[in-house]
Amino acid sequence: MDKLKKQIDFILEVDKLKSIFRRSLIADKSRYENDAEHSWHLALMAFLLAEHSNEKIDLIKVIKMVLIHDLVEIDAGDTYCYDEKANLDKRQREERCAERIFRMLPKEQCDEMFELWEEFERTDTPESKYAAALDRLQPVLLNYTADGISWKEHDISMEQVIKRNSPMQNGSEKLWDYAKELIQDGAKKGYLKK
Amino acid sequence: MDKLKKQIDFILEVDKLKSIFRRSLIADKSRYENDAEHSWHLALMAFLLAEHSNEKIDLIKVIKMVLIHDLVEIDAGDTYCYDEKANLDKRQREERCAERIFRMLPKEQCDEMFELWEEFERTDTPESKYAAALDRLQPVLLNYTADGISWKEHDISMEQVIKRNSPMQNGSEKLWDYAKELIQDGAKKGYLKK
Repeated sequence: MDKLKKQIDFILEVDKLKSIFRRSLIADKSRYENDAEHSWHLALMAFLLAEHSNEKIDLIKVIKMVLIHDLVEIDAGDTYCYDEKANLDKRQREERCAERIFRMLPKEQCDEMFELWEEFERTDTPESKYAAALDRLQPVLLNYTADGISWKEHDISMEQVIKRNSPMQNGSEKLWDYAKELIQDGAKKGYLKK
Repeated sequence: MDKLKKQIDFILEVDKLKSIFRRSLIADKSRYENDAEHSWHLALMAFLLAEHSNEKIDLIKVIKMVLIHDLVEIDAGDTYCYDEKANLDKRQREERCAERIFRMLPKEQCDEMFELWEEFERTDTPESKYAAALDRLQPVLLNYTADGISWKEHDISMEQVIKRNSPMQNGSEKLWDYAKELIQDGAKKGYLKK
């Protein structure tokens, strides 16, 4: 029962992910998206878009990765990808949070969490490249669908969006081709700074 | 590209799950939980609590199931489990929604969605029994943690909660034992109607 108690305490602790808000609006533009919703969306995408990964992947590993990849934001907060200053100490803030929350779990599961998160951050395996591609594609889809409101709000240029998202091609050339078209069309529609 | 376009259209359509609200509060009691967050939480639980399933399970199937099990609520809305009248036409409303949204996908994936959802609803396999146990455990955890506010608000008794949640034991006796303790403790604390 002690093991189960640790697991349940962790499950309740990570409920806080539902209160970490991102810079993307949900598709109907009514409000900002939170990390739990984003993680659900990525897990579903991982499953539906698997055939578009450049390399053969172990799907369950990708799904585990995207389900947990943002847990470190529970203490560290969401770091906006275009905020260069906030990105300087992002890793440090996130490591502290990983230490606090992953260690709530029984040893073996704690180790698995660290391994999944580290692999996601390194982006050096077929699974983490594909997971990172999804993590970039999803906000592009939402920002484009929500008339570029978030991009406009933060005065983002097409060059910034291309630079931020081009690593998508390492996970999926097909998805990157699709995303590029949306970004270019978004620029034409005035969603991005000239 | 036509296949990818269908998949992306579906991914954007199901963004609406983020606006379907449930009757459980999130753990910090600040607001109601939505279906997308709930589905993320279940997927993470599926992975962390797998060892407690009564029977051996194919984890990826369970995770796919819980990720998509509430998509039919996009049109049908969340049907409160203790609302007997609303439950009378629940199946009919949900089938109509499944027809509309699953058919947006390429044939093979549409078939997989129907199969996963039907299996989840029938609860007659190790995977669907375990998935159903998680789907019952998660709101018990949240309602207990949020001081029973939702139970009190809807004037729910311990007998109703026990009756609703006892099928949890078909998926996991261990989780049901844990949940029963919480429910009994919740009753002692006055979270449930006498």
